[in-house]
Amino acid sequence: MIDLRSDTVTKPTEEMRRALYEAEVGDDVYGEDPTVTKLEKLAANILGKEEALFVTSGTQGNQIAVLTHTQPGNEILLEAESHIFYYESGAVAAFAGVQTRTIIGEKGVMNPKSIEEFIRGEDQHFPETGLICLENTHNRAGGAVIPVQNMKEIYAVAKENEIPLHVDGARLFNAAASINTDVTEFTQYCDTVQICLSKGLGAPVGSIIAGSSEFINSARKWRKRLGGGLRQVGVLAAPGIIALTKMRNRLAEDHLNAQVLASGLTDIPKIKVVNDVDTNIVVIDVKELRVSSDEFVKKLKENDILGVSFGPTLVRFTTHYDVTEEDIIKTIETIRQQFK
Amino acid sequence: MIDLRSDTVTKPTEEMRRALYEAEVGDDVYGEDPTVTKLEKLAANILGKEEALFVTSGTQGNQIAVLTHTQPGNEILLEAESHIFYYESGAVAAFAGVQTRTIIGEKGVMNPKSIEEFIRGEDQHFPETGLICLENTHNRAGGAVIPVQNMKEIYAVAKENEIPLHVDGARLFNAAASINTDVTEFTQYCDTVQICLSKGLGAPVGSIIAGSSEFINSARKWRKRLGGGLRQVGVLAAPGIIALTKMRNRLAEDHLNAQVLASGLTDIPKIKVVNDVDTNIVVIDVKELRVSSDEFVKKLKENDILGVSFGPTLVRFTTHYDVTEEDIIKTIETIRQQFK
Amino acid sequence: MIDLRSDTVTKPTEEMRRALYEAEVGDDVYGEDPTVTKLEKLAANILGKEEALFVTSGTQGNQIAVLTHTQPGNEILLEAESHIFYYESGAVAAFAGVQTRTIIGEKGVMNPKSIEEFIRGEDQHFPETGLICLENTHNRAGGAVIPVQNMKEIYAVAKENEIPLHVDGARLFNAAASINTDVTEFTQYCDTVQICLSKGLGAPVGSIIAGSSEFINSARKWRKRLGGGLRQVGVLAAPGIIALTKMRNRLAEDHLNAQVLASGLTDIPKIKVVNDVDTNIVVIDVKELRVSSDEFVKKLKENDILGVSFGPTLVRFTTHYDVTEEDIIKTIETIRQQFK
Amino acid sequence: MIDLRSDTVTKPTEEMRRALYEAEVGDDVYGEDPTVTKLEKLAANILGKEEALFVTSGTQGNQIAVLTHTQPGNEILLEAESHIFYYESGAVAAFAGVQTRTIIGEKGVMNPKSIEEFIRGEDQHFPETGLICLENTHNRAGGAVIPVQNMKEIYAVAKENEIPLHVDGARLFNAAASINTDVTEFTQYCDTVQICLSKGLGAPVGSIIAGSSEFINSARKWRKRLGGGLRQVGVLAAPGIIALTKMRNRLAEDHLNAQVLASGLTDIPKIKVVNDVDTNIVVIDVKELRVSSDEFVKKLKENDILGVSFGPTLVRFTTHYDVTEEDIIKTIETIRQQFK
Repeated sequence: MIDLRSDTVTKPTEEMRRALYEAEVGDDVYGEDPTVTKLEKLAANILGKEEALFVTSGTQGNQIAVLTHTQPGNEILLEAESHIFYYESGAVAAFAGVQTRTIIGEKGVMNPKSIEEFIRGEDQHFPETGLICLENTHNRAGGAVIPVQNMKEIYAVAKENEIPLHVDGARLFNAAASINTDVTEFTQYCDTVQICLSKGLGAPVGSIIAGSSEFINSARKWRKRLGGGLRQVGVLAAPGIIALTKMRNRLAEDHLNAQVLASGLTDIPKIKVVNDVDTNIVVIDVKELRVSSDEFVKKLKENDILGVSFGPTLVRFTTHYDVTEEDIIKTIETIRQQFK
Repeated sequence: MIDLRSDTVTKPTEEMRRALYEAEVGDDVYGEDPTVTKLEKLAANILGKEEALFVTSGTQGNQIAVLTHTQPGNEILLEAESHIFYYESGAVAAFAGVQTRTIIGEKGVMNPKSIEEFIRGEDQHFPETGLICLENTHNRAGGAVIPVQNMKEIYAVAKENEIPLHVDGARLFNAAASINTDVTEFTQYCDTVQICLSKGLGAPVGSIIAGSSEFINSARKWRKRLGGGLRQVGVLAAPGIIALTKMRNRLAEDHLNAQVLASGLTDIPKIKVVNDVDTNIVVIDVKELRVSSDEFVKKLKENDILGVSFGPTLVRFTTHYDVTEEDIIKTIETIRQQFK
Repeated sequence: MIDLRSDTVTKPTEEMRRALYEAEVGDDVYGEDPTVTKLEKLAANILGKEEALFVTSGTQGNQIAVLTHTQPGNEILLEAESHIFYYESGAVAAFAGVQTRTIIGEKGVMNPKSIEEFIRGEDQHFPETGLICLENTHNRAGGAVIPVQNMKEIYAVAKENEIPLHVDGARLFNAAASINTDVTEFTQYCDTVQICLSKGLGAPVGSIIAGSSEFINSARKWRKRLGGGLRQVGVLAAPGIIALTKMRNRLAEDHLNAQVLASGLTDIPKIKVVNDVDTNIVVIDVKELRVSSDEFVKKLKENDILGVSFGPTLVRFTTHYDVTEEDIIKTIETIRQQFK
Repeated sequence: MIDLRSDTVTKPTEEMRRALYEAEVGDDVYGEDPTVTKLEKLAANILGKEEALFVTSGTQGNQIAVLTHTQPGNEILLEAESHIFYYESGAVAAFAGVQTRTIIGEKGVMNPKSIEEFIRGEDQHFPETGLICLENTHNRAGGAVIPVQNMKEIYAVAKENEIPLHVDGARLFNAAASINTDVTEFTQYCDTVQICLSKGLGAPVGSIIAGSSEFINSARKWRKRLGGGLRQVGVLAAPGIIALTKMRNRLAEDHLNAQVLASGLTDIPKIKVVNDVDTNIVVIDVKELRVSSDEFVKKLKENDILGVSFGPTLVRFTTHYDVTEEDIIKTIETIRQQFK
């Protein structure tokens, strides 16, 4: 099987498994797991924030950020197909009690002026705008990189209006790799950020949220309420440390593979690559083949290749370190033959 | 003062005051206020629903509908500038815990196909689509009437997907008057409806929600939680009965006055009427006058005329039974002189 | 019918009806109803607080207080049979998201030491104690007066721990009348208070919450979310003004009638008065009659007298201004004859 | 250090570490992690329920149970010092919006009659009783076993009133070991149960909830919202399988050690063992030593022994597999010498 469904399917490397095996652990609810502490310090440092906190998933990290930044009855601004809005089961409304006001982005990029317009004035009819959320890279925009300049402008609007800015950076290291810069180029323009250890970086489980010490202090309590206060969780932190230290540099390979895939698919008649392929995601439209995305995915699966439906006629492929260049070549060839 | 800010400013008529004075009352928490019971039966009958419930405001009626129809973590579909989303302080998220997914309408009218596309499939990443909300007439679309045919099509989508449809009909009687039809032409295409007694119909306080007996039974409990279970509230129901029986027929006058106003304002250079004036609302753009809406409204107020800002350069005027044709003529003249 | 179910059943007096009829009104959402403004100033003054706000019911006032004082995940301390806990349908959890921690009182009176013990320390396993609530008089303790000294001690604990104290004073004027003192003797020992205009004071609908200007400012928004932002609500405020100015002095009569009733019932074998009858409530136990409270109440109703079941063998009677001394005498006689 | 603070401090055994290292994993959000699937089937089988679900902590399992069983505005019945009420940061109110109604138990055991009395009847003033929760063994009652007979009686009340019963069985295997029975003796009398892999059973992280297939299906979605939908979580499931298969039998050793400790401490003047020591927890009162529990714990720590404060003068010790009989003897000796 060539599994291009998501970079979440990556399996821990041998080195990660050894780290799991050897991890020095303690009870992290008592703050006594040295491996977790090490990971959190490392992550804070890499992300350029005062403190960091290990959480079990990107969704948990994002939910904690919203719970910590907002009050019920607030409104949050976010892109209309962002993960928090699109893929987190309405949890921000269910748990934080905030109203989602969405902005339709251009390739995932929100216009700072739209944000400015959507910030609510003082009026008893209006929810207070309590948070702005950005997703970088933007999954449903095909792994699009939100430019540093755009983040800078949005952060300026946020600061001027005294509204916090949270970045869902589940794939922020892909953004940094894509423009070959340090991740702090991005994180300097936000108050808090969530990054995933378990996608392109390959750790089995876990994410990080980072921000001010005050933020992390409150976040810790919301994590406990969500059931994310864990015990000997150094066993997860240990591969997380490897993810952060050794896996970031290889994301460029995934991007290259995605380029190769996109280029190969573009050459196939009736298949259209619809995203810019900034990073490790390729989205194609199969409309002209007169098949639905579900049919296309099913057919591919019969040929030992996995992708995911991303809309009625859209299919998404995601590259990651369990996928080689040969896999990519084989994928292109298979699609060419099956859908000629 | 000519008060064109809203039809909510209407004062009770002499007949309503007399009804207040004479109202037969009881303790409505015990279900013993005969005037409330009479109003609720009358309203259910007029709206073509099994039962109706008196509530203190349109916002309370809408909130109860959302609380009764949905579960936390659901998503509700509604127009991007609808009252529930725009003007109810984020209460649907704060209280019902539902995520708002907005559809940008054309003059307040949502495309049934957009609704179909936005209904969520089964997936643990997705909130369940729990409710569709319509607003008729649509306030921020300038009192636009949502056509019966559009409601019919949306209701068909709702039924096919087993999702309830609630209509915020705060000004639904204006819609009925506008196309000269019975209100049940509209309400046949929804599960529940909220109508206001205190806008064009002139009652001092109150709204009605109507639906199935089962719905009203649950709604009653949510009303109690919201603090809307009242005692000798027949004093409010009595003018409500007059509103429903005697005031609906005169809404056409308000619409005519709005037409006269729109026509007069259209003749003034640099002022642009931006809505279709289906009912009792006129929205103008004052951009070409190079003033903000706030400045425009302030200047008008100095001349004893009241309107409201409806956007940076938009101003809304609403006609109602405390405004005469002469008032309208005077308003046009004043604007012509002040902003020439 | 002699209706002793509750003081909520009182009907507006002729003077109140005239006030309704003549009320000067405006749109209170715009802050323009002069009668509401007058009532709110009057109430703030009587209660010794900076500002006051008209709300539609005691439940709405209490809910707004909890929503304004607390954050989700907080814990509130309150008596185990207090109205907020016992009779408000779990709304504090549903809307404010706060956990209720109850203290079993002695005749409604909570021990300040118990409160001190129950205040949570800092620990990520613990909710933060966000509010202490008191009920005075205490309905389920049979209208018991919470002594000023007890309030003073509890307020001292609250201040020391920087926790706000809210008083559900639906019948606080009964407490003041009972010990013949000014209501500010009580309200000096709380941050916010709710009082009802519609119980012993006889207004048809409405309550007041009072506190600091900052509190009322936030409360106004929560009132809007609950659907309590109303229009020409001067029609309710007008009788409310009469309730506050003319009806407080006559509460002593209700208390006297309750004494007479209790004394008469005590003389009947097998009927036991179980409360101290501090104010206008008499609770009897009918266990020795070998009937359930439901059967007792039903039998009484056949004899044109109404009471309410208050537990499996408990029955509550409440005196109010629609009940005369003769009614009381007749009630005693009827019970004596029916249950000998 | 002899760490008697909690059985949560246990570190994974060599066998567990090897299992972590070798675990066959997949993406569990896609339902493709074979080790998780194996653990869940095993757990369902052991607990006698249709299906089971891996969650990251006992708190997460309990929260999911409450979210799945209830609706906002419901009331749940639970013991006044139960973990869900006492130690979960008010999360049931914050997330599920349910009101907590507590029953004061006798050594953690709730009287079925109290439960019956506290179930609410139908009335718009009342929250609906939506769930009954039991904790077995009961932590704050000193690891007390709730007898099977008590669970049977409470379950009968629950069934009669059509209310689900959830058991917080974080230490349910200790209960089973204590009375030397199969755990299904207990779980037959509940609808859902949560058990911890990470306390006495020694797994580094994780808990299980079990119930009907329908329950687990809904629970999965709430787990996702809480951020508990994980990826290659087989690395945690693998030691969980060892915990369930190999560690249950040795709990009796912990109980024996606790008996030895209790017996030794009883002999020390001015120290009073206050619980029955049914399982692995010993609670002592140090009041007569004229020290606070905090001072006592601090002094112990200086002597390389760890316990936890459990009240102003109460100290809790918990035995587990990282504590040997010699450790226990040394603990007794140290306390004897330090506090003579």
